[in-house]
Amino acid sequence: MATLTDVARVAGVSKNTVSRYLNERGYMSKETKAAIQKAIDLLHYQPNQIARSLSMKKTNFIGLVIPDVIQPFFATMASHIEDELDRRGYKLILCNTMHSSSKERKYLDMLSANKVDGIIVGSHSVDIDYSGIDAPIVALDRWLADDIPVVYADHIQGGHIAARAFLEHGCRRVAQFVAYSKVSSPSAQRHKVFAEEMRDNGVECFTYELRLNQFEFTSYLQTADIFLRQYPDVDGVFASDLVALALQREALSRGRRVPDDLFLFGYDGSFVYKIAYPPLPTVIQPYDEMASAIVELLEERVAGHIPQAKSHVFPVVSSTEVDAKQGKSTSPSTANFGLLATPHS
Amino acid sequence: MATLTDVARVAGVSKNTVSRYLNERGYMSKETKAAIQKAIDLLHYQPNQIARSLSMKKTNFIGLVIPDVIQPFFATMASHIEDELDRRGYKLILCNTMHSSSKERKYLDMLSANKVDGIIVGSHSVDIDYSGIDAPIVALDRWLADDIPVVYADHIQGGHIAARAFLEHGCRRVAQFVAYSKVSSPSAQRHKVFAEEMRDNGVECFTYELRLNQFEFTSYLQTADIFLRQYPDVDGVFASDLVALALQREALSRGRRVPDDLFLFGYDGSFVYKIAYPPLPTVIQPYDEMASAIVELLEERVAGHIPQAKSHVFPVVSSTEVDAKQGKSTSPSTANFGLLATPHS
Repeated sequence: MATLTDVARVAGVSKNTVSRYLNERGYMSKETKAAIQKAIDLLHYQPNQIARSLSMKKTNFIGLVIPDVIQPFFATMASHIEDELDRRGYKLILCNTMHSSSKERKYLDMLSANKVDGIIVGSHSVDIDYSGIDAPIVALDRWLADDIPVVYADHIQGGHIAARAFLEHGCRRVAQFVAYSKVSSPSAQRHKVFAEEMRDNGVECFTYELRLNQFEFTSYLQTADIFLRQYPDVDGVFASDLVALALQREALSRGRRVPDDLFLFGYDGSFVYKIAYPPLPTVIQPYDEMASAIVELLEERVAGHIPQAKSHVFPVVSSTEVDAKQGKSTSPSTANFGLLATPHS
Repeated sequence: MATLTDVARVAGVSKNTVSRYLNERGYMSKETKAAIQKAIDLLHYQPNQIARSLSMKKTNFIGLVIPDVIQPFFATMASHIEDELDRRGYKLILCNTMHSSSKERKYLDMLSANKVDGIIVGSHSVDIDYSGIDAPIVALDRWLADDIPVVYADHIQGGHIAARAFLEHGCRRVAQFVAYSKVSSPSAQRHKVFAEEMRDNGVECFTYELRLNQFEFTSYLQTADIFLRQYPDVDGVFASDLVALALQREALSRGRRVPDDLFLFGYDGSFVYKIAYPPLPTVIQPYDEMASAIVELLEERVAGHIPQAKSHVFPVVSSTEVDAKQGKSTSPSTANFGLLATPHS
């Protein structure tokens, strides 16, 4: 990455002269101007980058604004993002907004006061207007504003994967759970695709909406309990992993057979889906690739670049496909634990 | 909190004079000295606090150094700690050390460079010597050094709760899984208590050790797979929630009945244990109280106080006890979700 010093050296002028040229201040000969511009073109020099680093306000802190890091999707993203930020010399400041909507605003204030270099926003808030905020922000699975890039998994593909599974299983009356619909998210795409595909194949499909910031597993258990009592004739549910897992537990505790009586298909693919038995089929998002893309985009924005594309979409994969490929072959044949103590006799 | 300015005002002298008194610099009349000391006593003024804030080096950033925020115990602690720090005006910097042991050292460097005010350490490292580090550090469930306070749940009580359950269930040959034993942690207490109580009651008890930083659920599934093949006659296992959940899944997939053929008891009590069916009994740690204590202790250390006690132990509770108390009474009778769309017909 070329610096102002590089430009000055190549152009054969002082840094101050380059700075004056960039800021169009003071007199300068036509030849000097041409020499500086030539050096800028040659070095692909980005004035914004330098203006920023010259201002000495870079903190190398990045804020991660999410509903709650307890939630496995966000915990997994946070882990991968922290990893990626660390590799690039940034530190991650964690901000959970679920129990306090004003926190998101605080981070925007920190951003404008240059206490953080940029923020990653995956929170589910409905009362903050991001349009017109000209600062390094990247959204995680959220539409924030026209000029804020967003990284998300391919919800359309995810919706198709799930729909195919419900059709293959022979479901006749299905439901899907969606997040609070006033939160503008690309996830709406998967629910639209899913509902359409059910309808096109003559399967009844109801869509149920969770509350704003409903992320706690205990609240999902309550939702599952009420849902199964109210809709005993639903034979399939498509929902994010934790909601599907809550439905599975509540269905099993009522003596219903999963998947025979109730077919469940998840969406998320963090480790939690692997806890369930019978196994919960789900759509797995590529957390590591999404995290890399987020950090890369943010770093570009911090450097003053305007990202070319707004949407950055990553392909998902079905867990049944992954499991079929891996089989039991990944299991080591020898123990990955050791005997520490035997009984005293 | 009284400031140096307050003391100066009450004593009727300049700030410089108060500063000279505190640092025992220059001449000062007996009367002036007495007036300043009287103001200090009256206002309960703490010179250390002020010295620190006067040095302008306070950042209000606190580092949280843990193996990986994906792990539900650490995710839950991180969530509560972030909440508590936010209430006190601090920001949390997240640092996962599991995939890079050098990160822990980086945080100690940040601490000595005053880039963070203090750190909370819950990482499982074996190669960092904390003794003699005179800085605001609080340990989470880890013995770091003689002068570093540590917050943890009552492992002795937890060991007793679990032991009683295995005896009541009539287990004859049990195993327990422990974390990598070179990591010095109060958790060793619960394993000692558990093994002793098994032995005292004539029950065989083997202790198995996991690898350093073995926290990933997929690796627990492998451990469970191998363990169940090698030790088909073990009729009970005491392990942290994720290990117990992996054993449950692998046992069920082999057609073994849980808890009849294999009795499992967990330890941790983050939300994940609630995913299992049949329900996994476990020991629940008081995350919120532990988080408050950690932040309180750290704030005291940041203010220059030496904590009175080293160990801060919090009582645990059995999940079966909690479930029995709550029953189904906490479930709302009305839906906490709404119908968004019905099928097009």
